[in-house]
Amino acid sequence: MSARPSITAGELARRLGGTLRGDAARVLRGVAPLVDAGPDDVSWIAHPKYLARLAHSRAGLVIAPPSGIEIPPGRDVVHVPDPDASLTLVLALLAPPAIRVPPGIHPTAVVAPDAVVAGAALGPHVVVGAGAVVEEGAELHAGVYVGPGCRIGRGCVLWPNVVVREDTVIGERVVIHPNATIGADGFGYLYREGAHLKIPQIGRVVIEDDVEIGAGTCIDRARSGETRIGRGTKIDNLVQIGHNVQVGAHCILVSQAGVSGSCRLGHHVVLGGQVGVADHVELGDGAQVAAQGGVAQDIPPGVVHGGSPSVEVSAWRRQMVSLRRLPDVLERLRALEQRIRQLESTTHDRA
Amino acid sequence: MSARPSITAGELARRLGGTLRGDAARVLRGVAPLVDAGPDDVSWIAHPKYLARLAHSRAGLVIAPPSGIEIPPGRDVVHVPDPDASLTLVLALLAPPAIRVPPGIHPTAVVAPDAVVAGAALGPHVVVGAGAVVEEGAELHAGVYVGPGCRIGRGCVLWPNVVVREDTVIGERVVIHPNATIGADGFGYLYREGAHLKIPQIGRVVIEDDVEIGAGTCIDRARSGETRIGRGTKIDNLVQIGHNVQVGAHCILVSQAGVSGSCRLGHHVVLGGQVGVADHVELGDGAQVAAQGGVAQDIPPGVVHGGSPSVEVSAWRRQMVSLRRLPDVLERLRALEQRIRQLESTTHDRA
Amino acid sequence: MSARPSITAGELARRLGGTLRGDAARVLRGVAPLVDAGPDDVSWIAHPKYLARLAHSRAGLVIAPPSGIEIPPGRDVVHVPDPDASLTLVLALLAPPAIRVPPGIHPTAVVAPDAVVAGAALGPHVVVGAGAVVEEGAELHAGVYVGPGCRIGRGCVLWPNVVVREDTVIGERVVIHPNATIGADGFGYLYREGAHLKIPQIGRVVIEDDVEIGAGTCIDRARSGETRIGRGTKIDNLVQIGHNVQVGAHCILVSQAGVSGSCRLGHHVVLGGQVGVADHVELGDGAQVAAQGGVAQDIPPGVVHGGSPSVEVSAWRRQMVSLRRLPDVLERLRALEQRIRQLESTTHDRA
Repeated sequence: MSARPSITAGELARRLGGTLRGDAARVLRGVAPLVDAGPDDVSWIAHPKYLARLAHSRAGLVIAPPSGIEIPPGRDVVHVPDPDASLTLVLALLAPPAIRVPPGIHPTAVVAPDAVVAGAALGPHVVVGAGAVVEEGAELHAGVYVGPGCRIGRGCVLWPNVVVREDTVIGERVVIHPNATIGADGFGYLYREGAHLKIPQIGRVVIEDDVEIGAGTCIDRARSGETRIGRGTKIDNLVQIGHNVQVGAHCILVSQAGVSGSCRLGHHVVLGGQVGVADHVELGDGAQVAAQGGVAQDIPPGVVHGGSPSVEVSAWRRQMVSLRRLPDVLERLRALEQRIRQLESTTHDRA
Repeated sequence: MSARPSITAGELARRLGGTLRGDAARVLRGVAPLVDAGPDDVSWIAHPKYLARLAHSRAGLVIAPPSGIEIPPGRDVVHVPDPDASLTLVLALLAPPAIRVPPGIHPTAVVAPDAVVAGAALGPHVVVGAGAVVEEGAELHAGVYVGPGCRIGRGCVLWPNVVVREDTVIGERVVIHPNATIGADGFGYLYREGAHLKIPQIGRVVIEDDVEIGAGTCIDRARSGETRIGRGTKIDNLVQIGHNVQVGAHCILVSQAGVSGSCRLGHHVVLGGQVGVADHVELGDGAQVAAQGGVAQDIPPGVVHGGSPSVEVSAWRRQMVSLRRLPDVLERLRALEQRIRQLESTTHDRA
Repeated sequence: MSARPSITAGELARRLGGTLRGDAARVLRGVAPLVDAGPDDVSWIAHPKYLARLAHSRAGLVIAPPSGIEIPPGRDVVHVPDPDASLTLVLALLAPPAIRVPPGIHPTAVVAPDAVVAGAALGPHVVVGAGAVVEEGAELHAGVYVGPGCRIGRGCVLWPNVVVREDTVIGERVVIHPNATIGADGFGYLYREGAHLKIPQIGRVVIEDDVEIGAGTCIDRARSGETRIGRGTKIDNLVQIGHNVQVGAHCILVSQAGVSGSCRLGHHVVLGGQVGVADHVELGDGAQVAAQGGVAQDIPPGVVHGGSPSVEVSAWRRQMVSLRRLPDVLERLRALEQRIRQLESTTHDRA
């Protein structure tokens, strides 16, 4: 296995400019939330309300603010002036050595004569089409295809067998996991005389800086104009993004979610796993949809939906609770009908 | 970006043999339905009931029949004798120049000595197995794998990294998008003594003419016999088609739909996004299923289903409306029970 | 098409040490359950309760125990002492000749100098990274990528364009279908100052012996520690397995199912198609989830769930039946309210 970085608690405290209470010799290797962390993980606590979670955490070391949270004795902790900044630094310290593509062009790569790839790293069997530009420091792992006219920004990493079709524009530090497909034709036909005629898909895909795209995920090119994924958005595996979709910045799209053609997602939108969004729907900034939700209508900014067809999440939860009692409702209804018939006949008898 | 075809409204009217009302110099680049079209798109109107939609459309030019629809003033329109035929022609005129694989065999391609690929175009790192036939004009983009004994028809386009396993038969003008897999083993096991024994998957896949298959989509080979996709059927990205499924002609299967083993879909069937169909289910000609529906029982021809487990779509809509009122139903039921207790005691008191 | 094994009924009976009643010359080519089998398939009957199914089966030959099941006349049958053992043997006899990668290293493969691949078969354009070990008899089809530090066990078959990222450990006789991705980064971020910081994914994936993994399926590496797929587990196409998931032995995960990070599945768990499981959920041994179920809470051993959010499957079925009657419930409730108002006013009038 490749060597992995580690750091002692003492050294970490020193690098963070913090104060350690606990075992300075403890070796730390990862970063994780309290519920997930193990004995060689660094975790963090940001508010006293998480103290219960801390009590059950197996985390080896916890980052905490200088005051305001009473960390129980026996728990290793490093108090730092700025926990957020410290976490960022810890992540950088413990990031594993990346599997890098050696700089230069592997002899088995096929690069069009007019493509620009100086300063990039191209692995075995990579293909770069005519007029494409792969910027400095970008890494294309084995079997990656970059079509004609594409632009791949600095510091991008495309893992093996990723396919990026023609004219796609990818910003800087974008990571695309294996077997993902960027820029395939959108799904659009005209139905004429019993057959489906293909609508030309003549637009492109634009991926902004710092986006991450999961394995097997598909982002279709626009019918015309652009399909766009905003800055810092993170997309999980096997997600489908239809033609002409606009995804804002810093969104989270969990695995197997699907967004149909021409949808607009604002910034900081979150789609749970297996969520589906119908075409032409608009989700405002900060809108969220719980896993397996089916969104057929617009969601205003900041609103959380669940269910299929989706409704506001608290209404959905009430519906689901009621649904469990529905068989019982039928019983009670039958009983009531019986009793009321009884009453009616009694009343009638007296009339 | 690659050059894209465009046409002026005047020239277009001339080519269509139609009568233009509006700006003959307007440049048009795409084709789209009224709700999607932009100022450089051609759209169409087929019935006066769409005039409201036309009012809000940004389409640059609208194709309309010679009479019967009153196009409002100020709207650019070309009246043609046969709007359907005209649309087909416009699509052909505005289709972008395809990214073509140059004819011949790229020096990095690996072709079995007895494979027949004369007249086909094989890109870098393509692999064609023993006894396979790739017909004239077919294009295999970079990294495509065509297994032994396959037949790929004239004019097919297989985009990068498509995998077609052994003995698959693909008709003419079939388009398969990147990273799709045709002919992997069906999912079938015998459960014996606590373990799953693999059932040999010895059938094949047949794809008829003019089918389109989306990126990442998987179509499994038959256990025995054939998995078959009918003529003109269009399949979106990340769709799963199980072993021995029979899909009729001119169907539409939207992204992330899944069809289990041995299902039979008639002609012109439509499955919405993320629909699931259980094994051995039969869907009649023209049957449709709304997005995220789960089909566990046969659907007769022409019937539209929704929900999971799916029911006739209007029944499903009524159920969904009722479901929203269910928490309220519980309240009302409680109130009724209270009132009836009251009545009963009153009646009892008097008895 | 490649040649396929076949056997006559007479020869089969001889090989199984059984007694044939029926046409000894009948040619058999496949194995299938009664409902699926055709005239050249061998099927089996294990209990008299399946006699109805047998009556409608098109199976060419049925394997049955020596006594205890009255096979109707006119049905070809071979009685064997141990039907289970016989089925295993029939499967072996009728398995198609595999499409094998010729032993050795294809000249277009790229193998790191310190990788160990002696005795393995590497197809065209395969890439094997530094320090990787591919054991004897393992086959890597065209375009497979095996990252640095991986171990691929004896007798594994990786179909074209499979990607296995660094440090993955794969046991013996594992089959991975085309375009699957093993070991991509888990999906984990820290949300800080409006942006998502990547949590390093420094763990690995371990696949135990005799696992099968479908086309396009993604199994993410662990954040730290391991994502593990237990011995004999079978995973269908387009399934998502998140980071740190533990799947037990002999599970069945049907197409398009998704298992979120840190879930634990016991042995013999079955997930239907398109099932979703939320993160950190635990499913006991033998737990099952019906297709499209959404699991948000632990499922005890042996319990079957359905619905989203999922509940015990019989409760779910009752809910679904009730749901169909819900619009009617509303009607009946309105009627009751009317009648009770009537009664109340009558009672009031008399008071």
